[in-house]
Amino acid sequence: MDSIILASASPRRRELLSQIGIEYEVIPSNVEEVITCTVPSEIVMELAKQKAEDIVIQLNCPGKLVLGADTIVALKGEVMGKPVDEADAFSMISKLQNNTHQVYTGVSLSYMKEDGEIFSHVFYEETEVMVYSMTEEEIWYYLKMKTSSNNAKISKWDKTSVPFECEDKAGAYGIQGPFAAYIQGISGDYNNVVGLPVGRVYQELKNILK
Amino acid sequence: MDSIILASASPRRRELLSQIGIEYEVIPSNVEEVITCTVPSEIVMELAKQKAEDIVIQLNCPGKLVLGADTIVALKGEVMGKPVDEADAFSMISKLQNNTHQVYTGVSLSYMKEDGEIFSHVFYEETEVMVYSMTEEEIWYYLKMKTSSNNAKISKWDKTSVPFECEDKAGAYGIQGPFAAYIQGISGDYNNVVGLPVGRVYQELKNILK
Repeated sequence: MDSIILASASPRRRELLSQIGIEYEVIPSNVEEVITCTVPSEIVMELAKQKAEDIVIQLNCPGKLVLGADTIVALKGEVMGKPVDEADAFSMISKLQNNTHQVYTGVSLSYMKEDGEIFSHVFYEETEVMVYSMTEEEIWYYLKMKTSSNNAKISKWDKTSVPFECEDKAGAYGIQGPFAAYIQGISGDYNNVVGLPVGRVYQELKNILK
Repeated sequence: MDSIILASASPRRRELLSQIGIEYEVIPSNVEEVITCTVPSEIVMELAKQKAEDIVIQLNCPGKLVLGADTIVALKGEVMGKPVDEADAFSMISKLQNNTHQVYTGVSLSYMKEDGEIFSHVFYEETEVMVYSMTEEEIWYYLKMKTSSNNAKISKWDKTSVPFECEDKAGAYGIQGPFAAYIQGISGDYNNVVGLPVGRVYQELKNILK
């Protein structure tokens, strides 16, 4: 399989592609996100497609495959992106605890045909996540944690130090970190919650490339 | 929370306890496993209890909490432990592909009371795993992979080099490695498939220690 282009700066998506042995280069899209849909599954597909096609156009290299992805959390119809500050993160976790929510990741596999037309194969995966009940003390303890990710840069909330664990994550939690203590179970693909449904991606790539 | 004793040599169980911030020391049990049950959930609880109580007795230290765990894979009533060789691994993956199986992890939280009596709180978690269909070529490609785990020691099958990815894993696969390409989804706790249901473990520890 030729190496693909990952149109995302997310270290978690990089790690997931590496985990299943897909070679890639990273060219993050900074396209301005335009949301015209209201249904979570359609929002993530729309944004994934915008990111992938943005890079396809920049590259202008027929046949080069670009993967775009977008992840959001939805609870009873309310869509949660990344928290803007600590109070927003507290509000998100307070709603997610003792409850079941859905995580949607949209993926777009896009390339330019020889005639310059852009082809995009777009799909999404939905995973249900059940979270145990948490005390206020447990929520604050979690929100004060710093990330231990190797890819941690500088915190957006606390400019002098490493990011908080909940920063930069849809729904204000990372299932692959200490929040695992509060996960009762899931229904669907685990890696979809981390940020990329690599099982489905691998199967779709096989179909496109055969 | 005081540090606990992990009665298991599994590097994956160590990583999972670290992930949720539980402090532990490792004292692996080498007790001879005695299976008197036939139901998968009972087998893993029986073995987890034997391992934990073996270490409780060796320690002879009242109040010190020991965690024992055991994981097996079951497909339509057939129990799969770790593969004994490559042919066994091939047989297991051939059955798991294009199918749904169950993973059971039993956990025993055991300690000695002041009067010397042993108390064990034993439970299990079950996770359903759906595997995409795989070609024979894909199965062999997977079986020939070497592990990239940091904790890799020497292969039992190929004494001169690092272990195969499928070695030393119930059902001959690790969901947290390249086999993720073939996972369609799960129902239950993901970490239960990796080897320890840390969400449930954290909740049970809170109840025991309060």
